[in-house]
This record gives sequence, structure tokens and C-alpha cells, in this order.
Amino acid sequence: MPTSEQASPAQIARSLIRSGQHQEITYGLAPGYVQCNLVIIKAIHAYDFLLFCQRNQRACPLLEVTEVGSPLTKQIAAGADLRTDLPKYHVYRNGECQDRPNHIKDLWQDDLVAFLIGSGITFDQALTRVGIPIDKRHRWVCRTRLKTEQAGRFHGNLIVTMRWLTPEHAIKATQITARFPFNHGAPIHVGDPDIIGADLAKPLHGPKIDSIPSHLIPVFWACGVTSQAAAEAAKLDLMITHAPAHGFISDLKADDICLP
Amino acid sequence: MPTSEQASPAQIARSLIRSGQHQEITYGLAPGYVQCNLVIIKAIHAYDFLLFCQRNQRACPLLEVTEVGSPLTKQIAAGADLRTDLPKYHVYRNGECQDRPNHIKDLWQDDLVAFLIGSGITFDQALTRVGIPIDKRHRWVCRTRLKTEQAGRFHGNLIVTMRWLTPEHAIKATQITARFPFNHGAPIHVGDPDIIGADLAKPLHGPKIDSIPSHLIPVFWACGVTSQAAAEAAKLDLMITHAPAHGFISDLKADDICLP
Repeated sequence: MPTSEQASPAQIARSLIRSGQHQEITYGLAPGYVQCNLVIIKAIHAYDFLLFCQRNQRACPLLEVTEVGSPLTKQIAAGADLRTDLPKYHVYRNGECQDRPNHIKDLWQDDLVAFLIGSGITFDQALTRVGIPIDKRHRWVCRTRLKTEQAGRFHGNLIVTMRWLTPEHAIKATQITARFPFNHGAPIHVGDPDIIGADLAKPLHGPKIDSIPSHLIPVFWACGVTSQAAAEAAKLDLMITHAPAHGFISDLKADDICLP
Repeated sequence: MPTSEQASPAQIARSLIRSGQHQEITYGLAPGYVQCNLVIIKAIHAYDFLLFCQRNQRACPLLEVTEVGSPLTKQIAAGADLRTDLPKYHVYRNGECQDRPNHIKDLWQDDLVAFLIGSGITFDQALTRVGIPIDKRHRWVCRTRLKTEQAGRFHGNLIVTMRWLTPEHAIKATQITARFPFNHGAPIHVGDPDIIGADLAKPLHGPKIDSIPSHLIPVFWACGVTSQAAAEAAKLDLMITHAPAHGFISDLKADDICLP
């Protein structure tokens, strides 16, 4: 761990999380740094899961895959430990979430592999810069009717992030997010939720939606939760993920992974 | 196979290749369609190779991975057969190229997996539209000193495509290729070849280069041949690739995989 003079906001955030001083959501923490979804599975399933991410790259942009048995990142964060550096985890057994611990030191095994997948939180700062609201009253995660490309036992429908925006903001947000091709990129749909079968009545995150305000337009982005849902549906005997909005903060800067 | 009224230029090209009527390079064939490098290896090595491509995405943009044992594409070309639809193959045994057949019908096995990787040929049409010369007197493939990220037994140095361009064309080509983030994207270097250790004295393709004309500037792009070289260096007991410039023509259009 570098001294505080040298430490970046991302390193400081991970350090606070590791020591248990920050156990809340990572939303808004270390702004400007790329945040990741985490999926940990057994090596025996890793090829199919890697292929699922390749086949559904828009939803599942892979930023790093650890070596089998290693909980340490090498490429996107120096000296990070995935057993301790996220504030909250979900532990699934046979597809059921059975535990929500703050670290997984006692759960790590030599046959596990960790996948870090880009999160839409990453471009929120770029959106706020142009005045687009990003708080939870304007942002939902929900299922759609769109099928993903299957790989082995991993399959399921596309999950999207939906934001309600003014027409002007919808246009700006489309341009801004298109600059992040390796982090979900441009929207996959705009307007009528029924066209993609977006289930706004039962969002995975965010309050139930009764009707869309007439002056706003819903805009939909492919969401990294798609990978987690596919792994959950595969009913693996063991899967560990980040808890929603409790992501991994990498050393990558959002500005460094976007196009000019 | 659709009738000729329905067939696209890509389908016609693959049909001519399959029937043995076209056995030459695919450069210039079906312009506007995405061309791919091919790497076929045994399933036992597929996870490491898939991970190598993920870790070196700039050089190795994966467009499709077939199911184990299937030589048929599903996502990027309808009804294509990778045993017959490329005009020439290279067959490596223990890292040595031992045969250069026009089809591999007799070599296909149930434990093989095919990887299709974006080729820089894909954006050549976009370059010619603005008057940038793309013929072989202006285009080389060569090794560099830059290391790739290793995955299992796959490792090696980055291989690049180099084009000699006028300063004006160098700027235009940078802008145009940046629009293809999933197909090598913008240049990785411009100017002095020594900075990246580009071995212009022994190019893999193109004539030996003695000196760079003073009015031209060398521009370097990450090249899909990187994946082939890594697989070659791994000295697998069996690997089959496309012969250089004898690529696979997909149904994807270059204009559909580029940003606006």
C-alpha cells in the first residue's frame, strides 16, 4: 500500500474498504475511476463463462480475468485483493443467494477464477458533467425479452440499465456513452419499453415504475448484471458476486478507456 | 446457398472459394465486408487462447468462436464452413508449418475449435475512400519489441501492421481507424520504428525496408497476426490458420461495426 501522499483516490477507496471502514455502496466513491462488476466461479466453468462474455460483449465487457486460484488483480489494479477490496458480496449456492458477507477470505478456493466486468457506473461522471441526473430516481436495472447468445450452460435474457431523460439529455447521453465502446457503449434502445420487453413493473434495482412522465424518454443500455444473471440461472454450486452497487474500483480512469 | 439474385458479395465470394474457383488472396474480394484471421486449435487449449485474445484485445479482436467440434459459423456468417470457405490454409504441427492446402475437410476433428479474429484489411476500404493508398508497397506486417499479456502457454511480442503515409494521410487514417474500436482501432504508434522495436529489416509480409522515404511517416496498428504468432510459438501439436492474406470473408459489413 502506497503512503497517502502517493495513493490515488482509487487506492484510498480500496484501502478503506479492505479495512472495513467503508461498507456502503461504491456509487460516487473515487469518481472518474472505472468500476467493475465481479463474478467468481469455479475454473471448470470458466471457458463457457469467458465465451458467454465474448458473445455478449456489449453487456459483458471483460476488463480482467484472474489466473485460476488467484484472487489478485494484475492488469487493472495494482495490489488489489478481490477477497477484501469490495464492500459487500453475494454468495450463491445452486443459484440461490445464501449469504451477503463483507469479505470472502474464508470462501476463497484454489479452483476459483474472478471475472471483472465493466459497470455502467463508470460513465456516470461523464454524464453529470453535462448536467444529466444520475441518481437512483433516474436509473433502473431491469430484465428484457431480448435473448443473449448462449455459451455452454450460460444463457438468459439481456438485462438493461434504464435512465429517464429529457430529449436533449437523451441525445447528449447517446453521444457520450458511444465514446465508451468497451464499457457498454451507446444505448441499445430508446423509447417504448415494450419493444424490447423491458420489465419496468419489476425492476431489479429501483422502485416499481407505474408510468413514464410524459416529458421524459426512457433510454436503455446493455448492463453488466446480464453476466451475473446468466451465471445465477446456470445454478452453479458456488458463485460469488459483488452486491448490487458495491463494485470493485479499479485503477483505470474512465477518461482513459473512452474515445476522444 | 441462396440463389445468385439473393446472394450478397460475401456469400458469392465464399461460394467461389468453396468450389475451388477462387484460390488466390482475399484482399480486394467482397470489399466492404469484414475479413477475419482464422486460428483453429484443440479444445484443450481453447480457454488459454480465448483468454490471450481477451488480454490482448487491441491486436486480437474476437468476432466469433465456434462450438467445440463445429467448423460452422453461427454469428458472423450464415451457412459458412470453415473447412472449405477460405482459399488457403497453413497447417502447423509442433509450431512448424508443414502444409498449405486449399481446404481442410480431411483434417477437421471433433476436438477442434475455430477462432475468427478481425483483420486490418477490414478498414482498408474506408482508407481508400479518402485516397489513402493501401497496396502492398505501402503496407507491411512486422514484429515489435512490445510484449503481449501472457495467458497459459500463449505469449509473445506484439505484431503490427505498418503503413507509410503522408502526414496528412497519417492524420486521416488515425481518425478513420479510431472508428473501428473492435477491429484494432487507432494506431498504437506513429513515427520512429525503434521506439517500439519494429523489425522493418525482416518484415513478415512485404519487402525488406532499407530506409523510410523522408516525406512519409510510418504508422503502426496492432495486428491480428499476433494471435497466430502466439499460437505458433506455443508449439501446439496441431494448429490450422488462414494463409497470409487468404482470410475468411464474413457477412458483417465494415460500416456496421464502426462508430459513426
